[in-house]
Amino acid sequence: MNKNSSNIMALAPNTSNKRETVCIFGTGDFGRALGHKMIQSGYPVVYGSRSTQISNLIPKDAEVLGHAEAAQKAAVIIIAIQRQHYNFLTKLAEVLHGKVLVDISNNVKLNQYPESNAEYLAQLLPGSKVVKGFNTVSAWALQSGTLDASRQVFICGDDVEAKQMVMNIVRGLGLTPVDKGSLLAAQEIENYPLQLFPMWKFPIFLSLGLGLFFFFYCLALDVIHTYIYENNNVSFFIAISIPNRVFPAMALTLFGLVYLPGIFAAIIQLYRGTKYRRFPDWLDKWMLCRKQLGLIALAFAALHAVFTLVTPLRTFSSWTTSTEIITQALNNQTEPLNHNKAWLNDSYLALGMLGFFVFVLLGITSLPSVSNSVNWREFRFIQSKLGYLALILCTAHTMIYGGNWFLNSQAYKWYLPDIYMLALVVPCAVLVVKFVLILPCVDKPLTQIRQGWERNPRYSE
Amino acid sequence: MNKNSSNIMALAPNTSNKRETVCIFGTGDFGRALGHKMIQSGYPVVYGSRSTQISNLIPKDAEVLGHAEAAQKAAVIIIAIQRQHYNFLTKLAEVLHGKVLVDISNNVKLNQYPESNAEYLAQLLPGSKVVKGFNTVSAWALQSGTLDASRQVFICGDDVEAKQMVMNIVRGLGLTPVDKGSLLAAQEIENYPLQLFPMWKFPIFLSLGLGLFFFFYCLALDVIHTYIYENNNVSFFIAISIPNRVFPAMALTLFGLVYLPGIFAAIIQLYRGTKYRRFPDWLDKWMLCRKQLGLIALAFAALHAVFTLVTPLRTFSSWTTSTEIITQALNNQTEPLNHNKAWLNDSYLALGMLGFFVFVLLGITSLPSVSNSVNWREFRFIQSKLGYLALILCTAHTMIYGGNWFLNSQAYKWYLPDIYMLALVVPCAVLVVKFVLILPCVDKPLTQIRQGWERNPRYSE
Amino acid sequence: MNKNSSNIMALAPNTSNKRETVCIFGTGDFGRALGHKMIQSGYPVVYGSRSTQISNLIPKDAEVLGHAEAAQKAAVIIIAIQRQHYNFLTKLAEVLHGKVLVDISNNVKLNQYPESNAEYLAQLLPGSKVVKGFNTVSAWALQSGTLDASRQVFICGDDVEAKQMVMNIVRGLGLTPVDKGSLLAAQEIENYPLQLFPMWKFPIFLSLGLGLFFFFYCLALDVIHTYIYENNNVSFFIAISIPNRVFPAMALTLFGLVYLPGIFAAIIQLYRGTKYRRFPDWLDKWMLCRKQLGLIALAFAALHAVFTLVTPLRTFSSWTTSTEIITQALNNQTEPLNHNKAWLNDSYLALGMLGFFVFVLLGITSLPSVSNSVNWREFRFIQSKLGYLALILCTAHTMIYGGNWFLNSQAYKWYLPDIYMLALVVPCAVLVVKFVLILPCVDKPLTQIRQGWERNPRYSE
Repeated sequence: MNKNSSNIMALAPNTSNKRETVCIFGTGDFGRALGHKMIQSGYPVVYGSRSTQISNLIPKDAEVLGHAEAAQKAAVIIIAIQRQHYNFLTKLAEVLHGKVLVDISNNVKLNQYPESNAEYLAQLLPGSKVVKGFNTVSAWALQSGTLDASRQVFICGDDVEAKQMVMNIVRGLGLTPVDKGSLLAAQEIENYPLQLFPMWKFPIFLSLGLGLFFFFYCLALDVIHTYIYENNNVSFFIAISIPNRVFPAMALTLFGLVYLPGIFAAIIQLYRGTKYRRFPDWLDKWMLCRKQLGLIALAFAALHAVFTLVTPLRTFSSWTTSTEIITQALNNQTEPLNHNKAWLNDSYLALGMLGFFVFVLLGITSLPSVSNSVNWREFRFIQSKLGYLALILCTAHTMIYGGNWFLNSQAYKWYLPDIYMLALVVPCAVLVVKFVLILPCVDKPLTQIRQGWERNPRYSE
Repeated sequence: MNKNSSNIMALAPNTSNKRETVCIFGTGDFGRALGHKMIQSGYPVVYGSRSTQISNLIPKDAEVLGHAEAAQKAAVIIIAIQRQHYNFLTKLAEVLHGKVLVDISNNVKLNQYPESNAEYLAQLLPGSKVVKGFNTVSAWALQSGTLDASRQVFICGDDVEAKQMVMNIVRGLGLTPVDKGSLLAAQEIENYPLQLFPMWKFPIFLSLGLGLFFFFYCLALDVIHTYIYENNNVSFFIAISIPNRVFPAMALTLFGLVYLPGIFAAIIQLYRGTKYRRFPDWLDKWMLCRKQLGLIALAFAALHAVFTLVTPLRTFSSWTTSTEIITQALNNQTEPLNHNKAWLNDSYLALGMLGFFVFVLLGITSLPSVSNSVNWREFRFIQSKLGYLALILCTAHTMIYGGNWFLNSQAYKWYLPDIYMLALVVPCAVLVVKFVLILPCVDKPLTQIRQGWERNPRYSE
Repeated sequence: MNKNSSNIMALAPNTSNKRETVCIFGTGDFGRALGHKMIQSGYPVVYGSRSTQISNLIPKDAEVLGHAEAAQKAAVIIIAIQRQHYNFLTKLAEVLHGKVLVDISNNVKLNQYPESNAEYLAQLLPGSKVVKGFNTVSAWALQSGTLDASRQVFICGDDVEAKQMVMNIVRGLGLTPVDKGSLLAAQEIENYPLQLFPMWKFPIFLSLGLGLFFFFYCLALDVIHTYIYENNNVSFFIAISIPNRVFPAMALTLFGLVYLPGIFAAIIQLYRGTKYRRFPDWLDKWMLCRKQLGLIALAFAALHAVFTLVTPLRTFSSWTTSTEIITQALNNQTEPLNHNKAWLNDSYLALGMLGFFVFVLLGITSLPSVSNSVNWREFRFIQSKLGYLALILCTAHTMIYGGNWFLNSQAYKWYLPDIYMLALVVPCAVLVVKFVLILPCVDKPLTQIRQGWERNPRYSE
C-alpha cells in the first residue's frame, strides 16, 4: 500500500505459510539480505550453495542445500552470484529448464560488458525464463527495513508469466514493481543504480564557475575597492551583502541560459530551412539540461528573496537607519517624501516579487507528479508563456533596480561595470532575439518548418 | 527509467538489431518524427506509402515500400494517416488481418465524431487488433528529444497481447505506457491533448473579475479619495500598497468560496431528506473546481505574505518611520509602549502566519503524489478539519487586523465599507452556517442521510 | 486520464451501451452508490436482492432480480454484503461457478478476523474467481462525484484474467486501478482505509510534549521571571516572541532526533560486530519514523523563518527602535558601527538562511514523486550528505546566535539555562559522535560490517 503501511508490515511479519518457496543461489551479502526480507514477509526460502555447511549469517529459518536440490524446490530462483561465475550454471541447465531465473546483479561501472548480465544469463540458459530485477534496491536498506527512498523495483523480461511471478514477490516484500518491458531494457536497469545525478553535473559545474566569478568580481568592487580608496573595512559584507548581489545575478543569468538554446535552435532551423537534421551535439546536450538550469536559477532566486527580506534584521541596516535619522534630527529637519523614488522603489520590489511568484509556479509544475497530470499543450503553455513572463518580470525588476545608475561614472569602479549590468546581458539578449522571432514575418516560416515543411526538399534519385 | 537516463538514451542510440521491425503507414509529419525516434531507439522501420519515391524527409535508415509489402514485414503497423483516409485501408483488410494496428490520430476539436477514430478503425477492419496510443505525445518533442513534460503515453485496446506489444515499443522509446483499459477509452484519450486546463477556466475568470472589482474599489477609496479630499497624490500605492490590500481580500473570499458549496450541499440534502438525488448543475460544477479555487486562494495568500514582508524595505515605509521618530525627537519625548496595541498587533500577525502555514500544508497535500499516498479517511481529515482550521485562523487574522476600525466613521469613505470588511462577508457566512450544521441536532440527521437513510422512502408500486 | 478530464466525464455520462452488464449483490449504501456511478459511466447494472420490490433508493435504470437470476446476467458480480452474511452465498455456488466475485467489504477495526474477507470468500466459493477491490473508495465520494483525493483503487486476486476485467471496470469509472498482486494482499488492502496517519502518531505526540515543555519553560523564564523581578508585564510575548523561541528549539531538537537513531544503529553494529541481528524494537520504530520527524522539524523551521521575518512589522519592534534612536538623538550622539557585532549578526543570519535552504531541499526530495525519480545512491547522497550539512549549518546558526551569552550569568535566570542552550544538546551530541564515526579507524570496520563481514562468524555444527 503506501510507504507507511508497508513499513508496519516490515515490523509485523506475515507468518502465513501460503507463499511459495523461493530459491536463492549464492550466500553473499545481497543474497542473505534478500533472504532475510523474504522470510520476514512469509516466503519459505531455500539457499543453493556449494557448501551446505550452515553459517549463522544465513537466516535461521532458511534451508541450505546443494544447487540442484535447492533449484528443484522452487519455481523462482534468485541468482545472487556474480556474472563471472554464471558459467557454472550451464551444468545445471537441465534442472533450471523452465524455471524463472531472477538476475539481480549489478556492475561496477556503466556499460561494463557489451550485453547486460541478464541477457548474458539468458544466452547461457536458453531453456530458462530470465527476469531482471531487484538490482536497484540496496542490500543495506532491505536489511534495516528503512526503505525511505524509492520502493520501486524495475523488472524486465521476455516471458510475461515469469515477470508476473517476480512482480508478485516484489509486492509481497512491500515494494512496488515497475514493468520496464522486454529483456532489452536490462542494460538500462543495470546502469540505473550507478548514476549520480547525471543530468545535474553540467548545470552544477556551470553554476559553480559562474558563482565563483561573480563572487570575486563583487568582492573586488565592493570590499577591496572600498578598502583601498575609502579606507573602510566592510569585510562583513561577505556574509550577506555580497551573496545577495551574487545570487540575483546568478539567478537571472541562469534563467536566461534556460531560454538561450531554444533561440539558437530556432535560428538554426530558419537557416537550414528544415527540422529534419540533428542539432549540433552541444545544443542537444544544453537543451536536455534546461530543466536543471531552471531549477538552479530558482534556487538562487529563492536565496535572493530570503537574503533580501532579512535586511531589516541586520545590525548594519539598523545602524544605517538610525544614523540617517539622527543626522536629520540633529539638523532639525524632516525630508519630504520623494514621490519619484517611492514609485521606482515600489515598482522594482513589486516586479521582483511577481517575477519570483511566477518562477515558483514554474518550479511547482516541474515536479514529476504535476507535470505528469498536464498534457503537452498545457505544458508548453506553462513553460513557454509563463516562463517568458517570469523572465520579462525579473529582467524589468533588475533594470528598474539599477535605474539610471548605469549613467553614473561611480558605477564603474576600476572601469568595470556593476554586477547587475553583467547579469542583464544574457536575459536581454534572449528577450531581444525572441522579440524578433515572434514577428509574423519570422514566425510564419518557422512554424511551417516545425510542422514538417522543407525549404529545399531534395528528392534522392 | 527516470527522465534523465532516458534523455541520455536519446543521445546514445541503441543500435542493437534485436528490436522487431515496425511498419508506419503514412509519411506525414508525425509519421516521420515517430520513425526517426524509433530508428534512434534501434527499431528497423519500414514505411508504407502510395509513392515509393524516397523523399529525404524520411529517415535515411528506413525502407519505403507499397502499403501491402510494408505491412507484411511487421507485426505492428502504425497508422499515421488521417481518419478521412481510413477507408482505403479496407482494401488491405486481408494483409492486415491479425496485425496490430496502432491508431495515433488526433482530432481538431473535442468529440468531433460520434465514435473515436480508433473505434472507427476497428469497425472498418474487424480482423485486426486496434490499439490507441501515441496521440498524446507531440511530434516536435519526439523530434527534438526534449521530452521534459509528461512521458506518459496513454494506451488502450481490446486485445491484451496487442496492447503489450505496443507498450513494449513505448518503453523502448524511453516513454512510459499507461494502460487505460479497453478501446472504449479511446474517445477520452483522443480528447485529452485538446484540453487547455478545463477545470481552471471558471476559477480563473472568477478570480479575474473579483480581482478587478477589488482593485478599482481600493483605488477609488485609497488613491482617488485621498487625492480629492486631502489633495495628496499617493499614486505609487498602485505598485505595492493597493495590491497588498487586494490580495488578502481575494485570498479570503476565494477560500470561503471553497467551503460554500459544501454548505449548500448539506442544506439541500437536509431539505430533501435524501442523498440519492443529484445536486443542481451549478453546484456540481462548483464542487468540482473547489481544489482549483483553493489553490488560487493560496497563491493570493502567498503574494500577500511576500508583499507584507517586503514593507520595511519600501522607501515610503522608511520615510514614515523616520518622520515619526524625528517628530518625537524634536518634541523631546519618547512615547511609552502601548501594551494593548502590542497585543493586538502581535495577535493578528501570529494568526495570519499560522493560518498561512496551515493553508500551505493543505496546498502540499493537494499535490498528486502526496494525495495519492493518503487514504480517504486521512484525506478528509486534512481537507475538512485542517481546511476549516485555516479558514478560522485567516478570518480571525482579518478581524483582529480591523479591530474596532469598523466602528469609526472614517472607515466609510463615500459611505462605502473598507475592503477588509467586504473580504469578511463570505468566510463569516460560511463559518456561521457551518457552526449551525455541526450542532448535534442538525448533524445527526445529516449523517444519517449521508449513510443512505431517507426521510420519505417511497416504494414504487 | 487526469483528474480533471475524469471529473468532466462524471458530468457528461457516457451513455454508450457497449459496456458489459455488472451485477451487484446487496442494496446497501455502498452497493447503491457504486451502482449509481456505474450507470453514469455507461454500465448496465442488475441488482441481486432477496426482495425484488423496487425501492426508489436503487438507481432508476437498474434492474432488480433475485440473486440467482441476477448472477446469470453478468460475468462480474460485486459482493456488496457484509462478511457475516457471506454464508448464504454457498447456496449459489453453482450459479457463481467461474464468475468473477469482487469483494468490496471493509472491516471496523484492523486485523478483525484471522483471514481477510476476500480470502474467506474464496474459501467459501472455490469455483469462483475472487478479486478484492473498491474498498478504499468512499461511498460518499462516489455519490457526489467529488473524487478530489486519491483515485487509486487497490486490486488483488489470484486470477489474472479476472483481475483484468475488474481493472477495466475501475478505469471505466474514471478511477486508477493499482495491481497489488495475489489475494494474499487482501488483508493489507482491507486494513488500509482504517488507518489515520499511523506513522505520524509518535512524531506528533513527541512534538506536542516537547513543544509544551519548551513553551512553559520559555514562558517562565521570559514572561514570569520578568514580571516578578522587573515588574514588567510583557504578556504579549506569548503571541510571537515566545513561539519564535520555541519553534527553532523544536526544529533543531527534532532534526537532531532524525539522525540520532542512525548513530545508535552504528554503535550497536560496531559493538555486536555483525549486521545480521535485528535492532531492538524501539530503535526499529524510531528509524521508521525519521522522515516524519524530519518533516515536522522542517515545519517548525519554516514557522521560525516567517516569525523572524515579521519582526520589523511588530509594534514592539518599532517602539524599541524609535526609543533607542530618540535616546541617542537626545544625547546628541551617533554610535559608530560595531564591526564585530555586524560580523556576528550577519554570520548567524546567513548560516540560518543557508541551513533552512538546504533543509527545504531535503523536504522537496522527500515528496513521493521526487524520491521515486532518484536511485538509491542519489537518495543516500541527499539524505546523508545534504542532511548533515543542514544540521551543521543550523547548529552553527544557533551557536553564533548565542555567542558568548552562555558565559553571562544573566543567561541563567533561576539558575536555568536559556532555551537555545537546551536546543543545542541533541544536535551537538549527534555531530560529535558522527565525527568520531567517520574517523577512518572507526569507519573502516563499520563499512565492512555493513557489507556483510562478521567479527565472530560462528558456524553452527
